[in-house]
Amino acid sequence: MNPIDMQNKYLEILEKQGKQLKYISGQTPIDHSQSYKGNIENFVGFAQVPIGIAGPLLLDGTAGRSEHWVPMATTEGALVASYNRGIKAGALSGGFVSRVICNSVQRSPYFEFDNLTNAIVFGKWIKSMESMISSGVSQASKYAKLVNIEVMHEGNGVHVTFSYETGAAAGQNMVTLVTAQLLKQVLEHAPHKPTLFYIEGNMSGDKKANIKSLSKVRGRKVISEVLVAKGVIRDILKSSAEGIVKFWRTGTLAAAQSGAVGNNGHITNALTAMFIACGQDVACIAEAAVGLGRMEVKDNGDLYASLTLPGLIVGTVGGGTSLPTQKECLELMDCSKPEDVDKFAEVCCAVALAGELSIGAAIAEGHFAEAHQNFGRKG
Amino acid sequence: MNPIDMQNKYLEILEKQGKQLKYISGQTPIDHSQSYKGNIENFVGFAQVPIGIAGPLLLDGTAGRSEHWVPMATTEGALVASYNRGIKAGALSGGFVSRVICNSVQRSPYFEFDNLTNAIVFGKWIKSMESMISSGVSQASKYAKLVNIEVMHEGNGVHVTFSYETGAAAGQNMVTLVTAQLLKQVLEHAPHKPTLFYIEGNMSGDKKANIKSLSKVRGRKVISEVLVAKGVIRDILKSSAEGIVKFWRTGTLAAAQSGAVGNNGHITNALTAMFIACGQDVACIAEAAVGLGRMEVKDNGDLYASLTLPGLIVGTVGGGTSLPTQKECLELMDCSKPEDVDKFAEVCCAVALAGELSIGAAIAEGHFAEAHQNFGRKG
Amino acid sequence: MNPIDMQNKYLEILEKQGKQLKYISGQTPIDHSQSYKGNIENFVGFAQVPIGIAGPLLLDGTAGRSEHWVPMATTEGALVASYNRGIKAGALSGGFVSRVICNSVQRSPYFEFDNLTNAIVFGKWIKSMESMISSGVSQASKYAKLVNIEVMHEGNGVHVTFSYETGAAAGQNMVTLVTAQLLKQVLEHAPHKPTLFYIEGNMSGDKKANIKSLSKVRGRKVISEVLVAKGVIRDILKSSAEGIVKFWRTGTLAAAQSGAVGNNGHITNALTAMFIACGQDVACIAEAAVGLGRMEVKDNGDLYASLTLPGLIVGTVGGGTSLPTQKECLELMDCSKPEDVDKFAEVCCAVALAGELSIGAAIAEGHFAEAHQNFGRKG
Amino acid sequence: MNPIDMQNKYLEILEKQGKQLKYISGQTPIDHSQSYKGNIENFVGFAQVPIGIAGPLLLDGTAGRSEHWVPMATTEGALVASYNRGIKAGALSGGFVSRVICNSVQRSPYFEFDNLTNAIVFGKWIKSMESMISSGVSQASKYAKLVNIEVMHEGNGVHVTFSYETGAAAGQNMVTLVTAQLLKQVLEHAPHKPTLFYIEGNMSGDKKANIKSLSKVRGRKVISEVLVAKGVIRDILKSSAEGIVKFWRTGTLAAAQSGAVGNNGHITNALTAMFIACGQDVACIAEAAVGLGRMEVKDNGDLYASLTLPGLIVGTVGGGTSLPTQKECLELMDCSKPEDVDKFAEVCCAVALAGELSIGAAIAEGHFAEAHQNFGRKG
Repeated sequence: MNPIDMQNKYLEILEKQGKQLKYISGQTPIDHSQSYKGNIENFVGFAQVPIGIAGPLLLDGTAGRSEHWVPMATTEGALVASYNRGIKAGALSGGFVSRVICNSVQRSPYFEFDNLTNAIVFGKWIKSMESMISSGVSQASKYAKLVNIEVMHEGNGVHVTFSYETGAAAGQNMVTLVTAQLLKQVLEHAPHKPTLFYIEGNMSGDKKANIKSLSKVRGRKVISEVLVAKGVIRDILKSSAEGIVKFWRTGTLAAAQSGAVGNNGHITNALTAMFIACGQDVACIAEAAVGLGRMEVKDNGDLYASLTLPGLIVGTVGGGTSLPTQKECLELMDCSKPEDVDKFAEVCCAVALAGELSIGAAIAEGHFAEAHQNFGRKG
Repeated sequence: MNPIDMQNKYLEILEKQGKQLKYISGQTPIDHSQSYKGNIENFVGFAQVPIGIAGPLLLDGTAGRSEHWVPMATTEGALVASYNRGIKAGALSGGFVSRVICNSVQRSPYFEFDNLTNAIVFGKWIKSMESMISSGVSQASKYAKLVNIEVMHEGNGVHVTFSYETGAAAGQNMVTLVTAQLLKQVLEHAPHKPTLFYIEGNMSGDKKANIKSLSKVRGRKVISEVLVAKGVIRDILKSSAEGIVKFWRTGTLAAAQSGAVGNNGHITNALTAMFIACGQDVACIAEAAVGLGRMEVKDNGDLYASLTLPGLIVGTVGGGTSLPTQKECLELMDCSKPEDVDKFAEVCCAVALAGELSIGAAIAEGHFAEAHQNFGRKG
Repeated sequence: MNPIDMQNKYLEILEKQGKQLKYISGQTPIDHSQSYKGNIENFVGFAQVPIGIAGPLLLDGTAGRSEHWVPMATTEGALVASYNRGIKAGALSGGFVSRVICNSVQRSPYFEFDNLTNAIVFGKWIKSMESMISSGVSQASKYAKLVNIEVMHEGNGVHVTFSYETGAAAGQNMVTLVTAQLLKQVLEHAPHKPTLFYIEGNMSGDKKANIKSLSKVRGRKVISEVLVAKGVIRDILKSSAEGIVKFWRTGTLAAAQSGAVGNNGHITNALTAMFIACGQDVACIAEAAVGLGRMEVKDNGDLYASLTLPGLIVGTVGGGTSLPTQKECLELMDCSKPEDVDKFAEVCCAVALAGELSIGAAIAEGHFAEAHQNFGRKG
Repeated sequence: MNPIDMQNKYLEILEKQGKQLKYISGQTPIDHSQSYKGNIENFVGFAQVPIGIAGPLLLDGTAGRSEHWVPMATTEGALVASYNRGIKAGALSGGFVSRVICNSVQRSPYFEFDNLTNAIVFGKWIKSMESMISSGVSQASKYAKLVNIEVMHEGNGVHVTFSYETGAAAGQNMVTLVTAQLLKQVLEHAPHKPTLFYIEGNMSGDKKANIKSLSKVRGRKVISEVLVAKGVIRDILKSSAEGIVKFWRTGTLAAAQSGAVGNNGHITNALTAMFIACGQDVACIAEAAVGLGRMEVKDNGDLYASLTLPGLIVGTVGGGTSLPTQKECLELMDCSKPEDVDKFAEVCCAVALAGELSIGAAIAEGHFAEAHQNFGRKG
């Protein structure tokens, strides 16, 4: 089939379901005269990244059961095909169960004092002010909600981590601006004035992979699980539960030996492609592409697979979510409304798990190189 | 100035320098009838991500001195402005010195044996075959060159890491296909047959942040340094060497306490924006956005700053580099030819260092929240 | 001076201060007929490890100012001499300030469920039971006090970390036994019964270095700081604040590059020697020898130095603290009573900091090999 | 049985095998008039730590099959009993296979230059001098042998890691003194003189847990494996292969989530007790107590278990190995001669693996708290 026909085939399928991709498809050009203030400075135009469609993904989420087409923006051949295979295996096994466990974005100001004893007095004081600070947050922002304050001492310094729920937004800017306001009050009332302070002492995990976020949460912590039927593993994934589990054990130990953050296979491929497509802060891949997968053989030969993503920084408002093609992608997924943010996170995690299944099966059975040979070569 | 005028201003400046952005600017629509086979499956169109221009960056690279406009694709306000500020500080201080230290992409097959003693025999044997395997690589690929073989034992298993130079390509597919061919020969001649093997045991650092890559190399290891003059720090960065250095020490210790990989501030912002613009594998941000920064006050009040990026997976051929807007971005940077790959890597590292300077100064002086207030809000 | 004379000189000095080392000195043999039940099985006798004395250490602790002789059991030449030098530098600079920040020992049972949704119900339930569980702890133990409960989800499993204050004991056994009792109640009342559970899912950091403990606390979190006068650095440490700070920066970045937990120099030397001497659980060195040091030049050329030890598992009751030579060591330090536990922890941290100063100066000035040449050779 | 009778029973058993424990048993007092120069400064006497005997351990090592009594010095009840149980399970299953994979101790000098380009010239130069430096090592030391030189660039600095085989010694002092001599020559001939250098830039992993050592070697890398028969697991370990494997998976993922170095259970317990008994540098527990365990169910219900210890810093000469009780322990193990060093390392690893089996079974079956209740309480 020639490229245009292929594209049209998908556009037609989607159109029948009431989904129009007028910007993505190029039917409607983007209006360069619109102000992209808030998104970019020194604007000269647009990077254009190919989008392929995977799915439909069958999801059992917090909001119930649903099906989702998944737009993936990438230039890497074989990627969409691989995810599509994992998504299909999940759909044939009853779907992926996904749940947002919690939502928390951190900003971690740092305060330094003349000496250790003053730092300790300050640490105790600010912890005692938690409920008062929480009220201050409610006044400063319609959306941000203080979850808790964590105090960490180092020498004569104190890192104070403010964790916020951020509503439908990814929330990094929100927590920066709210924290800046809190800081003024903290500095005014503190029992000892710090000799210096920063709005961020590089402790929050902003824009980087770290163990602290892995062991807690940054953005949204989401878990997906699926019970893949023995026959589906054989027919779709061309493997067995035993084969995938054995590979996963090897890969987990290798992750430990190489000092990886988590034990995931390639979740960055899922998240990056969806983040670009859907107007997320793609730079957050550094912190989001961290996860823990688990694979286990059940007595009947089925495969239990789960993926825990503790650092999913996503939003359905703010950032690039209102740009033309980005909004279209969110609409395609039924995730364009503020209240869809958890659903969007749950789809992201399920897609990532689908990809772990697909790559695990491919490597376990020796099909990995072959797939890249077939799909990853220019035609 | 209205958006279109702003855009036109930049396009004119670039045009005078012989740079045309016909696809980026939207003047020439992208041809959807072209086959994007090798880049995407289930193609439906294009995600469009705004590009802003930073620069010009003054570089002292392996290939000599040069100036570069830097296209950054992002939806995060303040980002381009922040990098522009750091780039300007560097230019006024004589430019950034950047050098590619080495190039090495890994593929790490895993072999498991009946018992430990057989695994040891195999490990010694494959290490002894290094020069023969190296010849095999030369025959199997025009571009890949075997750098070395590393053998790591775990129980009755052996991870064998093949490291390759990959020429002008990022090279992940290249090393997969070459290693697949090597595997056949290894399995045929091995003194003990493995009970199982994988083409990748999750040891190579592919698509994930880990310490092994940080302490060695994955892709290209690049270092940039700059000596920022005291007056430039004051006038452009609105800070002092002492202020930035103090913040950097705090941030480095915080990175250690939180279990980060490296001590960087926000290099993912630079690399992601350039990777999207320039057709790189953006998912590799997971492994590339890892770095070590160093800041030191000189006796005269100048600031020595360096950034070491050990995992820059980049190419000027392959992947998305030949797509319309992506190619235009590489051309804008004078990095579109195969022989430009080291230059491209050196620009990436310098831009990332510029951003570390800018954010370091902003946080040290309490301007961080303010910048996001001004630039990060929709107009 | 011959060995016996040297030994006698120290014993006399101590005796004048009312400190008798009758078991350590060998004057009174240990009674092998005593039951060492609770300390050892299959008892055959005693390992004898040489003890050297460093100090006196000048301390500003939670309980006020005090001076301490420090017994160090080791077979490594140069070790006691190096610590002695750092301790002297501290004493001449007004002493080390040390504070216990908090006390918390963890036990982390793991519960697994039929599926993710049941696990979530359980996680919420157990968190809601926190105050009731806390009462249960008070009934089950005279000494243990529940600090908090932390719930961490992974797939269909839940790690529940119970953190306890443990009084004067190191507390690992205490928290195991208390948690075992809690478990019975939890399992009886849980809204969903787990498909399996463990009293410990390897999450608590028991007997191993990890980032979670570094970023929080395990045992006692203690911080020491000292302001070393410029002249003392020159005369005693034979270096300068600038020299030590420069080395410390290098060492910190190297720790990051090599994936170390923390950035310390050699705190294990201090802690191991004191743990053996004082009847602590020496195996806990694996988790305790983790720390964060900071070194900064003050405007007047003095050196600010701090050391943060988040994982000091120590006690003045229980374990080996009542054995003959071990008790003598605690008495020598004025740390043998239950209420001395924080003081003991604060001395440990100060000694470790003294050693960081000494090794930092030695390496910065090129005296490191020399010291080992002089002290580390058999006479 | 009363304590003295119990002790006598073991001493008799050992005496019949020609093993006398005259110092350990207290029959012969230690001569304090002997000079302990090289082991301690400011000597005042000896710490006395109870020793229990585990074993005999059945070993298939590099030097053939052998049986070993294992002296463990500890004050923690239940420890010897737990190791004894694991050792018995191994013996009844045909013994533990252990192999030293390699021996390499590092010293990592750091050199800094005026700028990055000079650093690069130096890095290439020193790598090119590898064989000449290797000859220098042979002249400087009878025992040290250069394995390789690794060059790691960071900014304008270069960490050069010299790796040495150290013969029968643990070797930290040896590599320090040899490297100090090399340094003089390097500095004399270097094409660019460094602006500063240190004999150690904190990169070598000396006295700390890090990922670099985990992924390579520090001291001796040793692997042990055992195939535990189904019936033995049932009768001795009171568990099943499935139960232990399931727990091990949980523990491994927990290690990843908490940022542990490796995935081990409690190998520090084995190594610390043996290091104290046998005159090793106990402070090295910080770096040695790092390991990777693997547990797998075989088709017949047997359990494959392996433990990989990459950082075993041990020696049978030097350090405390010639002290009275320490030498007796090495003799008891038939590991007191220089050529026994690999055997000693192989026993250490096997004992550690025995303990992983024992704790894995205890936790899997809910016996962990009970064991500490029974053994860990004063009588």
